[in-house]
Order: sequence, then C-alpha cells, then structure tokens
Amino acid sequence: MRATVLVRPKQGILDPQGEAVESSLRQLGFSVGTARVGKVVDLELDAEDETAARGEVERMCEQLLANPLIESYEIEFRENGA
Amino acid sequence: MRATVLVRPKQGILDPQGEAVESSLRQLGFSVGTARVGKVVDLELDAEDETAARGEVERMCEQLLANPLIESYEIEFRENGA
Repeated sequence: MRATVLVRPKQGILDPQGEAVESSLRQLGFSVGTARVGKVVDLELDAEDETAARGEVERMCEQLLANPLIESYEIEFRENGA
Repeated sequence: MRATVLVRPKQGILDPQGEAVESSLRQLGFSVGTARVGKVVDLELDAEDETAARGEVERMCEQLLANPLIESYEIEFRENGA
C-alpha cells in the first residue's frame, strides 16, 4: 500500500519559503495571491488494510514527518500499482 | 481559485531527503519500504476558469516551481472556500 502525506505550515505560521515563491512568481509576471510551501512524502507500507496503515502513518507524522506545533498533515492512500 | 502543486523527484533520481526519512523511520521501529520527499505548493490564483488556470500554473512550474530535469509535477484545483 502506498501513502502520500502532505505536510503544510499551519495558518498564521510564518512561511518564508512560500513568501519567496510568491515574490519570485510576481517578478516573473504571474498574478498570484498567497503561496504556501510544504512537503509531500510518498511512502510504501507493508500494512494491508487502510485503518492499520492510517494509524501507523499518523504515528510517523507525530514522531518524525511533521512538527505538530507549526505544521498540519493530511494522509491519502492508494493501492499498490495505482 | 486555489491550486495545489505537487513536485516530486523523478523515478531513478537520487533523493537524499527521502533516504534520510526512510532510515529515520526504520530507526524509530516503523516498517517502511521506499520513502520519497517532494514539495507541495498551495497557490491562490485570480484565474476564473480551470483551463486558463492550468496553463498558468504549468508555466509557473516550468519557470520556477519544478526543475524539469529531475522533478515531475502534478496540479490539482479547488474552488475558493473549499
């Protein structure tokens, strides 16, 4: 099973990388509002069913992938081969 | 309109950040296969319809957000407020 984890800076948290992207896009002539930059982590898991996998990935997020003080995370699943 | 851009290292391209995540997860006792790390960019756009917005965001990807030699990108849209 494959999981995709999206880790984003929480609302209200300063995001210097997003600000840099925003101003670079404007300098290139694009008309954009806010830009926010986070991480995407694609994982291959042994877990067979989604409920077990979700619990496992939530623990990974809390222990390593996201900083719960300043980041939120979102977990999506795909079957292998999809 | 809001766009979410996922930028990932292409298959076969070395991903040191992914390797670090993989080995850290194993050290924490998780059973994972491959881990790959990329970027997620959330953008607010003025464009009203999705076709125009998609073209615009593709140009952003090619000019700034992704390095086409080593990264692939994926674009998703949501209506504002969603």
